[in-house]
Amino acid sequence: MEEIVGTARIVATYLKDKNFTGKAYLIGSKGLGNELSAAGIDFFGLGPDPVQTDNLPEVFDAKFEKDVSAVVVGFDLHISYPKLLKAATFLSNPKCLFVATNTDEVFPAACDNTVPGTGTLVAAVETCSQRKAQIIGKPSTLMFSALAKEHNIDPKRAIMIGDRAKSDILFGKNVGMTTLLVYTGVNSKEDVEMWQTSLDPSDKLLIPDYTLDSLGDLLPLLENLTK
Amino acid sequence: MEEIVGTARIVATYLKDKNFTGKAYLIGSKGLGNELSAAGIDFFGLGPDPVQTDNLPEVFDAKFEKDVSAVVVGFDLHISYPKLLKAATFLSNPKCLFVATNTDEVFPAACDNTVPGTGTLVAAVETCSQRKAQIIGKPSTLMFSALAKEHNIDPKRAIMIGDRAKSDILFGKNVGMTTLLVYTGVNSKEDVEMWQTSLDPSDKLLIPDYTLDSLGDLLPLLENLTK
Repeated sequence: MEEIVGTARIVATYLKDKNFTGKAYLIGSKGLGNELSAAGIDFFGLGPDPVQTDNLPEVFDAKFEKDVSAVVVGFDLHISYPKLLKAATFLSNPKCLFVATNTDEVFPAACDNTVPGTGTLVAAVETCSQRKAQIIGKPSTLMFSALAKEHNIDPKRAIMIGDRAKSDILFGKNVGMTTLLVYTGVNSKEDVEMWQTSLDPSDKLLIPDYTLDSLGDLLPLLENLTK
Repeated sequence: MEEIVGTARIVATYLKDKNFTGKAYLIGSKGLGNELSAAGIDFFGLGPDPVQTDNLPEVFDAKFEKDVSAVVVGFDLHISYPKLLKAATFLSNPKCLFVATNTDEVFPAACDNTVPGTGTLVAAVETCSQRKAQIIGKPSTLMFSALAKEHNIDPKRAIMIGDRAKSDILFGKNVGMTTLLVYTGVNSKEDVEMWQTSLDPSDKLLIPDYTLDSLGDLLPLLENLTK
């Protein structure tokens, strides 16, 4: 698994790089918690934190430890009002770091439901804190900096392959890689055509260098190359 | 109480005006539910709806009734992941209405904590549904239309007094009222000075016609007028 690096690990790396020594508040999953623990980062917040009463003042005035130097937001099934209240309160201290793993609005459809992603929780915390999170995952370049340092990667000789232009392709462009969009996931040929004719400059950033219907279509091309 | 009209009632009026006959899904409080009931609107969703398992596929693939024609978002202490999943799924039907009471990021400080407001929940649902809610409260003019119709109000002869420029003052300007900002709440004199020198046109819309340190300062002015 040496070759698979998740945003959870980069969150830990990012905090270590910032010489983080305080306590972090985590809205996130066990996996993210494990990476923080492995990096020796002190945190709390994992698991359910439900509302205990319908009495608003009691919820609003809740007392809790406020000695928190970072709020980390990842995917959390147990998102709750007390968690939002705590995150907003910690982030009212401008010295408190605000880090999020990614901004994906939804997970790729695997079922009939529309499945909210981490970006939904990030939007909630950004709104109540009136701050913007430092995003660790794509399209942020932080992930690449960490990897490039460790593995000596030259972006000019690398290709970024992905199925979500707003994260994958934008990320590839942000770090100077060649980009390839495959149409087996989030974005379609119609999306690319729309961006190509769009007058919005931010849409232009989503246009990949190359496109393929599926990743499998890459094989015959590679075979031709090596003949 | 005839003279106090809340956004909850206007949400009900709005749905009735749209000849709404289906079922609504409510992320909101009992008060909002009561107004929907009073208007004869069929809804569900009130109260806790916690995650029952840590098994992601089980949560993501949950089966629930999908015959929903409107999602209404107000303030809900019991916000949870299953509620977001349901709202996002209902809203994937473009015919499903999407209504929210207001977009206030936080409640005015009454304690040491930063208290997330309805806008935080609206941002979450807007993100996972990738849609924008129809806002019923200020600065939307819907509220005024309903009131003006019922009470025959001429905006040119009315003044909007408020302490939050992004909702109160913008609302007053949107409907053509004279506006007065008091400095006893959300916004300060420094904010107004900042908007006056700002190059962002959206900041200009926040500048009130008049300002007062407090509403009490209005009294001597009125006394002078009536002398």
